[in-house]
Formats: sequence, C-alpha cells, structure tokens
Amino acid sequence: MTNFVPTPSVPAPDIVRCAYMEIVVTDLAKSREFYVDVLGLHVTEEDENTIYLRSLEEFIHHNLVLRQGPIAAVAAFAYRVKSPAEVDAAEAYYKELGCRTERRKEGFTKGIGDSVRVEDPLGFPYEFFYETEHVERLTQRYDLYSAGELVRLDHFNQVTPDVPRGRAYLEDLGFRVSEDIKDSDGVTYAAWMHRKQTVHDTALTGGNGPRMHHVAFATHEKHNIIQICDKMRPCASATGSNGPRPAPVSNAFYLYILDPDGHRIEIYTQDYYTGDPDNPTITWDVHDNQRRDWWGNPVVPSWYTEASLVLDLDGNPQPVIVREEKSEMAVTVGAEPSPTPAR
Amino acid sequence: MTNFVPTPSVPAPDIVRCAYMEIVVTDLAKSREFYVDVLGLHVTEEDENTIYLRSLEEFIHHNLVLRQGPIAAVAAFAYRVKSPAEVDAAEAYYKELGCRTERRKEGFTKGIGDSVRVEDPLGFPYEFFYETEHVERLTQRYDLYSAGELVRLDHFNQVTPDVPRGRAYLEDLGFRVSEDIKDSDGVTYAAWMHRKQTVHDTALTGGNGPRMHHVAFATHEKHNIIQICDKMRPCASATGSNGPRPAPVSNAFYLYILDPDGHRIEIYTQDYYTGDPDNPTITWDVHDNQRRDWWGNPVVPSWYTEASLVLDLDGNPQPVIVREEKSEMAVTVGAEPSPTPAR
Amino acid sequence: MTNFVPTPSVPAPDIVRCAYMEIVVTDLAKSREFYVDVLGLHVTEEDENTIYLRSLEEFIHHNLVLRQGPIAAVAAFAYRVKSPAEVDAAEAYYKELGCRTERRKEGFTKGIGDSVRVEDPLGFPYEFFYETEHVERLTQRYDLYSAGELVRLDHFNQVTPDVPRGRAYLEDLGFRVSEDIKDSDGVTYAAWMHRKQTVHDTALTGGNGPRMHHVAFATHEKHNIIQICDKMRPCASATGSNGPRPAPVSNAFYLYILDPDGHRIEIYTQDYYTGDPDNPTITWDVHDNQRRDWWGNPVVPSWYTEASLVLDLDGNPQPVIVREEKSEMAVTVGAEPSPTPAR
Amino acid sequence: MTNFVPTPSVPAPDIVRCAYMEIVVTDLAKSREFYVDVLGLHVTEEDENTIYLRSLEEFIHHNLVLRQGPIAAVAAFAYRVKSPAEVDAAEAYYKELGCRTERRKEGFTKGIGDSVRVEDPLGFPYEFFYETEHVERLTQRYDLYSAGELVRLDHFNQVTPDVPRGRAYLEDLGFRVSEDIKDSDGVTYAAWMHRKQTVHDTALTGGNGPRMHHVAFATHEKHNIIQICDKMRPCASATGSNGPRPAPVSNAFYLYILDPDGHRIEIYTQDYYTGDPDNPTITWDVHDNQRRDWWGNPVVPSWYTEASLVLDLDGNPQPVIVREEKSEMAVTVGAEPSPTPAR
Repeated sequence: MTNFVPTPSVPAPDIVRCAYMEIVVTDLAKSREFYVDVLGLHVTEEDENTIYLRSLEEFIHHNLVLRQGPIAAVAAFAYRVKSPAEVDAAEAYYKELGCRTERRKEGFTKGIGDSVRVEDPLGFPYEFFYETEHVERLTQRYDLYSAGELVRLDHFNQVTPDVPRGRAYLEDLGFRVSEDIKDSDGVTYAAWMHRKQTVHDTALTGGNGPRMHHVAFATHEKHNIIQICDKMRPCASATGSNGPRPAPVSNAFYLYILDPDGHRIEIYTQDYYTGDPDNPTITWDVHDNQRRDWWGNPVVPSWYTEASLVLDLDGNPQPVIVREEKSEMAVTVGAEPSPTPAR
Repeated sequence: MTNFVPTPSVPAPDIVRCAYMEIVVTDLAKSREFYVDVLGLHVTEEDENTIYLRSLEEFIHHNLVLRQGPIAAVAAFAYRVKSPAEVDAAEAYYKELGCRTERRKEGFTKGIGDSVRVEDPLGFPYEFFYETEHVERLTQRYDLYSAGELVRLDHFNQVTPDVPRGRAYLEDLGFRVSEDIKDSDGVTYAAWMHRKQTVHDTALTGGNGPRMHHVAFATHEKHNIIQICDKMRPCASATGSNGPRPAPVSNAFYLYILDPDGHRIEIYTQDYYTGDPDNPTITWDVHDNQRRDWWGNPVVPSWYTEASLVLDLDGNPQPVIVREEKSEMAVTVGAEPSPTPAR
Repeated sequence: MTNFVPTPSVPAPDIVRCAYMEIVVTDLAKSREFYVDVLGLHVTEEDENTIYLRSLEEFIHHNLVLRQGPIAAVAAFAYRVKSPAEVDAAEAYYKELGCRTERRKEGFTKGIGDSVRVEDPLGFPYEFFYETEHVERLTQRYDLYSAGELVRLDHFNQVTPDVPRGRAYLEDLGFRVSEDIKDSDGVTYAAWMHRKQTVHDTALTGGNGPRMHHVAFATHEKHNIIQICDKMRPCASATGSNGPRPAPVSNAFYLYILDPDGHRIEIYTQDYYTGDPDNPTITWDVHDNQRRDWWGNPVVPSWYTEASLVLDLDGNPQPVIVREEKSEMAVTVGAEPSPTPAR
Repeated sequence: MTNFVPTPSVPAPDIVRCAYMEIVVTDLAKSREFYVDVLGLHVTEEDENTIYLRSLEEFIHHNLVLRQGPIAAVAAFAYRVKSPAEVDAAEAYYKELGCRTERRKEGFTKGIGDSVRVEDPLGFPYEFFYETEHVERLTQRYDLYSAGELVRLDHFNQVTPDVPRGRAYLEDLGFRVSEDIKDSDGVTYAAWMHRKQTVHDTALTGGNGPRMHHVAFATHEKHNIIQICDKMRPCASATGSNGPRPAPVSNAFYLYILDPDGHRIEIYTQDYYTGDPDNPTITWDVHDNQRRDWWGNPVVPSWYTEASLVLDLDGNPQPVIVREEKSEMAVTVGAEPSPTPAR
C-alpha cells in the first residue's frame, strides 16, 4: 500500500508555472551546438561553465541552464511563485515535510533572486523563486524567428515509481490533474498536472525514479516541429527520434529528441485550455494503444526505460528506486502490434 | 476630467474568463448560415428563436447565443466566475456600485444556471455565472475539424468613450492590462485586459459607446484564418473584410468579418502567455502606424466608427454617448499613407 | 538475365501525365464513404455501379473510377496523351510489341472519349486517351475546401518482379527516371519515373507482380496530411496507417492509408521540379535506412508484401509472378533497428 | 491598330523555363543584405562586383545575378532551352526578326555556357542558354531551411504598352496563355504565359515599358510568406509592402516587396498544374475588383506605375514608351472602394 506524503498544516506556495530547468552536461560545447545551433534557443548570457537559454517569447532570464559537470543529470526543476512571500511559504512547507531545503537570497543561478531549493519527498530537486531579471521578450523579433522556433517552455516530465503517491503530493502542492492513464485494476501509470492554464506544468510517468523524463518546449505550429525533425537527421544516431506524433493525451503534436548527453527534449504544440475550475479530467485506459500515438505508431521502448538522473542539493545523483507496480511498457509495448488491416 | 467609477468596498468577483456572448440577430436563418455553415461553429442546441453555439474545444454549454429579435444588438457579455459563491459576490459588487442587477437562479439562457446580469457603469450588459451544463469537448473529433476550425472563444472588445475610466473600472474588477495605446499627451485610445492567461478577455476601444466592437474566436494555425478569409468571398459585400493581418498589439494574426447584421467577428491566432504577475505591459504609441497592422496596410475607417448596439436589462438599446477625446481614427487614418519606398 | 522488352520501331505515344485509375471495389457504399466522406474527393457523376471522382484542381472528368465488382483489383492505369493522334500511336506501339489491345471510340468510362487499353509487357492494364469532358475546376471553390483537401492526382506506383526490365520498357515509352534505389551488386529495387514535371507519374517497386502498390493524391500543405491522418483513426483497423513521414526519395511528406478493400492510397505533398532535360537523377543505396523515412521510423513490412491485383482486358486478375531477386524488405526491414542513442 | 511582330519562318527555340534574371544594383553590399540576409537566397559564388544566387531546390548555377552598376536596371531575362542546338535556333529566330543579337560561347555570366542575348521586339533583353554548371541542390539541407525559405524561381513579369502585341509575339515563341485580364471593349490589360507546367514563366502587364515589373520566387507553404512579410518590417520604408494576398489570378498567395534599388520581388506559392494541351484559359474581367486580391484589399497604385528599367545590349537603359490604351489603374484603382457592408 502506498505510503502517502503527509499534507502539511501550512499553506502550499502559490505556484505560477514551471519556469526553468538546470541540467548538467558533460561537454558544454557539444550541448551548445545542440541547443543553440540546432534547436535555436536564445542565449541570454554565458560563461566558460554555464549557458543561460530562453525561448522566443520568454521575458524572465532563462528557461534552461546548461552547466558543465562530470555526470549528466538534472540539478533543478524550477517553478516561479506568485510573490516574494511565496518563497517563504515554500521553505516552510518543505521544512514541515521534513525535507532538506536550502535558501539563497542571491539565487542559485544568474538572473534569479531569492530562491529555495528542496529535495522533495519524491527525491526531486525542486526550486521556487519569484525574483528574476526581465530580459527582452523576442516575440516581435521576426528576424530571429527560425523555421523550427521554440516559443515557450511548456512543461517538465518526471519519472517516479509510485504515481498515486506523487500525484497526491503534487495535488497538495496545488497542482490539478488534467489527464491520467489507468487500468481496470486501478493502477495509475501516468498523470498530467498543471498550475498555468495548459495541460501540464509537470507530469508523472511511472517508472524507476526519481529521474527526469523530459523537458518540453512549445512551437507555434505543427510545421515548426516537422522542420526540427527534418533538421535533426545529421545527428540521428544521437537522438533516437523517429518523428513527431499526435498524442490524444494532451491532444498535442509532439516530438522527442535526445541531447548529446541523452537528456530527452520534447517539442510540443497545441494542447488546450484548462483554466476552468471544473476542467474535465480525461482518464485513458492503459490498453488503449493510441493514447500516446493517435496514429498507432508503436511506442519506442526506451521511452519507458531511459531517463536522466537527478541531483541532490550536494550535487550527487539521487539513488534510483525501482517501480514495483506493473510498468506501462510491459502492459503495452510489444503486447500488441500496431493495428493490421483485415486483408 | 474623468469621472471615475468608485471602487466598491466588497471584493470583486473572481472572474475566470470570458465565456459567451448573447447577440440579437434579425434573421436567424441567415445568421445560422453564417455562423454554422460558413464559420463552422458547433450547434449545442437550437429552437425556433435561439441557437446555442460552441467552439471545438469548449466543454461548457455555449460560447455564443443567437437570439431572433427586432434590433441587432448585444444582450450579454458573459463571464464565468470561479465558484457559485462568486455570483453572489458579483451581485453585491454591482449593487454597491448602484447598478441595476437581475439575478436568475435558473439562468438567462439554456445550459447556464444561477447567474446575475448587470447594467455596468459603462452601460454594458455584463453577466456572471458559474453553473453550466458540460457538453462534449470536440477536441478529438477530427472528423468535424474544418479547414478554418474555430477552437476557442478568445475575447470580447467593447467601445467606450472614456478608456481610462473603463480601464480603472475593469482593473478594480480584477482585470490586468497587457497592452495599451496612448499618445504623448497622455490620451489612452485602447487597452487590452485579461483574466485568463492570454492577452485579453476583453478590450476597450475608444469611441462612441457603449457598443460592442467584436467578439473573437481562436484558430490553431494561421492557415485556418486564411481559409476563412478565402471562404468569405461569396458574401464579401456583407463582410467588409479585407484580409488577415498580423498585429503587433497582442502579436496575433487576425481577421475581421461581419455577420449578416453587421456584428463584427474576429478570427484570431497565436498571442502569448500573460500569466506571470509581472507580465510586462506593452504601451504602443498611437502614431506608430504598424501597431494594428505590422505589414502597414491602412486600417479600415469603419473599424473606428461601426460597432453593435448593446441592450439594457429590459432589452432596449443603450443610448450611445459620443467620445469627446481625440479619436484614434482622426489621429491616424488618412493622416499618413502606408510607407512609400524611396525610389 | 533480364529478358528485356523489345524497343518498337514506331514512335512511342506522347504521354502528358497519369490521369486516372479505375479500381474495382467490392462494396461501393463503403468505398463511397471512404473516398467521398473521409477523403473528400469530389463526385463528378455516379450511378448504381460506378462513382467518378476528381480532385479539387482537376478539370478533366475524373481521376478515379470506383466500379462495383466481385474482386478488389485495378482495371486501368490511364494516361492522357498530347493529341487524339497519339491514341493511334499508342495502339500501333503496343500492337508491334505483340500486346493485346482494345480500342473504343466512345471510351471505356463516362467522360472519356476515344481510348485504347492494352495488356502491357509487364502485365498491367494501361489506357491511353486524349478526349475528355471538361468539368468545373474547383480551384476557387473555397467553400468546398476541407482541412485535408486533395488537390491533384499525383502518381501511380506499380509492383513488378523485374525492375530493370520495367524501367527500360517505360524509358522506351518516354518516361524519365528521377530517382532509384540500388545496391552495390547493381540490383535495382525501385525506380521513380515521370512525364509531367514532378518526381513521378508512375514508379516501379520490386516485388511479386503485376500488382498496384498505390495511387497518390497531392495536398497543398503538410498540415492537410496530418489532418487526414488524424481523421482516419476511427477506421484505423482498416487502414494500417501509422502516420505521415518525410521521404528523402522524392523529398515529399507522405501518408499511406488503405481503402475498405485494402487498395493503398498515398497522400503526398511537396516534391520538386524535374522539367529540365538534365534533371539530376538521384540514386539511393538500399542500405540507407532513411531513404524511405527521413526520420528513421521503421518501414512497415506490409508495404513490401501487400498490393492490389490488376485485371486483364477480360476483367480477370493477372497471375502474380514472384520476384526472384533480393527483396528490399529482406535486405532492410528488421535487418537493423532504428538508430539508438549512445547512452 | 496594333503593329504585330511578324512570325518568323524558322522554328522558335524550344524553351524549358525561366531560369535566371540579371539585375544591376547600385549598392552591392546593401543588396547582399537584402537578398542573402533577409530573403535567404543561397550564394553560389561571388566577387567584388557580382553575386550569384540560387533558390533552395535549384541545381543550375544561379537564379539571380546581382551586378554592381551605376543605374538600377535589368540586364537579362534568361530562359533555359532544351538543348545546345536550341541556342542556335534562338539566334536564327531573332535574326530573322531583325533584332540585335549577341552570341557568347563562354556565356555572359559565370556558370552559364554558350548563350545568345537579344534585344527583343518589345525592347527586353532576353537570353537563351542550355549549358550550365550543376551545383548542389539543397533540397535536403534542412539545416539551411529558413522560416521563409525560397525554394524555386517561379516567373518574371514584364511591363509593356501593348499587351496583345506582346502576347502574340510570345505565343509565336511557344508560350501558352494560362490567364488574362480583359474588358468588354476587348482591351487586354495583362496576360500570364507559361512554358513549364505552372501558371507562368513570364507575364505581361500593360503599362509604360519595356520595364520589369517583378521577378518571383516560390515558397513551399503560405506561412513561409507570412514570415517574410513579418521579417521585412525593419526595412518597411524601403519595401512599400503591405502584406501577402491571395490572388484569384493564378490562384496563388503572394507578397510584393522592394529591394534597396526598388526592384520588385514577388514571393509566391501554390498555383496550379497547367501542363495539359487544353488547359483552360481563364479570362478575368478588369472590373472584377477581386481579380488581384481575393480578399478585396485595394491594389497599391504603385503596382501600376513603378517598375524597373531594362538595358540594351550595350548596357544602356531602353527608352520607356507610354501605353496609349486604358490603364488598369485608371479603370480600377480608386474607381471603387473595397466592398462596404450594408449596415
């Protein structure tokens, strides 16, 4: 039986949205080539060890920090909160949960002010901040608009062994579930959860964790994703990508690619508005083979097995705990081929 | 000097988003042809006198009510609030403002429950409701997806003589300004204001009012708008449309068309996220000829003069008050031709 | 050693383009639903046993004839020639080749005049005609333009055991090769051949034949194909489709779907101009796993095995001859998985 | 009465397509910025005085030559012919017409071999060549694909005072008319004429001439044109552009922009196939206000008055002869406003 995270007596911090991810990469030059030259993210600032990147329509300092380090991993999943006081609220909240926290008035990265980082109950390094340097929103810099332009950070996706436990914890933290995948035995395989008015700010994927499944950026239109996929080819052996797909889950059109360290990046477009209090939650049956690909392409097994390590507050990888419940892969991949015509 | 609307002592209702507009049309059959056959809105329900329409991704009962009547006008700008209690809050708020209000537990239209309608300080018929019948969200009904599919109600646009007065009133009501148009004398010509995390739920356009400038629906991509524009041609004499344009204001790509009664409809796509508390407000100079059309097409004069009447709670048209300040049209239209090359 | 088709002494007919295909379907009502309701082809004329369909921009009577019959098969691959005299040329050409021919002054189908049908040296039922009824070109009927609109017939694709033999025969007939797939032993697996200025009017795929691999219709843009793929889902079990792909071969973006009888239909967009006399021929290596899918999705095995029977001039299926050379499937499918990332 | 160009007794050269234009620019650095940095044409070769540019899918040496010179003008409208012998045919054809001709075995520009240039009966500098250096076709260089990528040279457009005279001359030369604009008095205002299987390789616009109205490049999709239009803004005062439009004539979606010297460039997409011998010619009525803009935007007057000078074979501008017949502008521009709604 699930050992649920207790609900704190103090109020949860008021989270606005997922704001940035800090990832450790082992070859900064190669990563720069991938994120700047191929994906076209915009450099806000950079130095020998670190690159601060943002999407076209962002006005905060960055959506992605690449930091040179010895082991490819994720150092922080950072959320923006509604006011400076909410950073205090976050600190108090996690302290009551008994989690290790670290507060830095000057921020953990350039361009971000007073922040708290925590090792959360699922083992993920979460950050909460309000203060940030405003930078130029490049929305109308059409001269910079590439054929596969990434316009917004859309969401995170986290791998965790016990999805219901993680979901209850995130619901306490104020997230609302837009969609989930279950089976008839009541096993939950994945859940999509949001603060901003889209399908998700983060999602939980059942599997060995804590690990980072992917971080997603949005494009304006579908052709932008097709272009990125076309452009990837020269480094196909490093991407493991095989084409964009439409997902009934989130109703988006999406593409998974891998960076030089194997961190998975999603390119994503056109989910739907979820801002009403009674926004209908959609529950998918794990046996619906088209829940992750409307078109019926078989899902890639590595999507269920490969993910990035996450770091504790000392910068060491968190140990990975094995999922005990049925895995979505075992239940579905290989179980059935894609539909075959009658003839 | 502006005679500002007083700020009530009771809290403003917590508004979620613009939800639907009720408009009176003089020939229901002709309007049905326009909204259903040409624009492709989906009929939730209809009877002899009324048609309830929704966009593809909507799950509440309707986004537009067409009601047969003697005079083309707008009967309600309806907002959804966060909970049933917020309808009480809205009623109390407008009562304190001395506005006429009418509460109907069973709603003013089919599919909507307990609601309050008010004649607001600017003379507009505003409605606030929470309860609504959930209907099928057609998001994954690809068989219904037309080449110019309207996927969401995006915003209203209201014409009012005194924009700063209207803006202050709406800010009290909880709206936040995303963009505005001013001149160096401090005159405000227009303001874009939001509750949901887009550029606007409603906007104020300076002019003789209270009148309804337009109601806007969103498409997924730009080609969807181009298709609607192409399709309009057979009724071009009734539309007054001349092509989609990119607007730096809201950064959207948009098209204005007119329904058979002359109600202006906007088709709109791809504005930006405004959900952060410190989302930067953009102020445009009224003399910037590209603020309303990035490409420099001259603005159509009727955009500044024509608009729809609005009704009081008895169903009679509100008298139109003349704007005394400089008009955006006088300041800009005809003042300068579109840019000419040097040669 | 290949037993080449002799080159006739009389001139080959001057072929303009692939013009229409006549296919036999076993349930006309179900086929109508597929081609008219789902794919949106336009009905020029229909009766109890036959439906004549055309694409949006076509001005000849039809691009596809569906005829009710006992066995699903292809009755004719019809080409338009440059003048009435070229029908005589075609008849003489095939008579010299010793092929069975049948001439009908009034045409084999409605809307087509004087024609000759032949059982060609590869066993395919080819038709040549010039006379046709002109019908309304729907190019500017934007009211008919669907989200997945098919605007032109693009090409045929034929399965034949001996590709070099077929290619030499078609080159004699005036076709020019734009692209082909070979291996280092000199085996040819496929060839793309054109008369009009696109990549192909027909292609030869190595395999058991004579059979029809697919008939292809073009859309304007890529999103049109994505829409068709989305819309297919309800009949996914009958389509065997799994998403559009970009093909380096022809540089097009394409989708394969199956009609209710299993006839394969391709939806295709954006190949390139081939009209110059020295248009460079592209030769792909059969071991290049991305030749048929730029993105590296594995090719569907049935693409190499399933195809439609073709009829002789009496309406009986032509016997299928087994390919003796290496098959593209054996050489490539399963041989290698899609690229895996290094991690 | 029109003084028609005589029909030569020798056969016309067999023209394949419009292939490149050579234009003289007054500031090569500024022009480079426009054509390379903004429009994204690809540099095949360049030196101090000349830049050779091509579109993405081109395999001949260039589609545009920019040459530094004292007066902005067009030095050549170059057509590719079907074989080396056709260059002889062209020379003989124009000699019989009494035109000045110049033959250069080594070509007039880099990358082009044996060519003949002529001062044609309408005063235009036409070139005919077959030999050309093949260069890399960039079709699959997705890394080079910009958001507004120009993929092909599509056509020329020439201004000439007497359209029927020009049309008859070009029909003799083997061009076929796809569309034209006339009035009920039989006056012809414009004609679209093709050799390749698109709507045009060149068009004649009635006006003071000989002058060059524009040279057109094609994009794959409509969003590519929108992007170019968005990107132009910073140099709007130099472009005189006001947005892409759909044209019933040619059924294309198009945009006019001006280079730093005022040479007009068209960006164009999605016309239709014209390769059948009996392709229906479309005749538009000059009083149909939507013939040049389906959406009813008023046409820009400068489209009828401004155009580029053309050079004789000595490099001197050809004198401009005034059109005597009614001008399309006088007949239509200003005559009627864009359609107004009834209200």
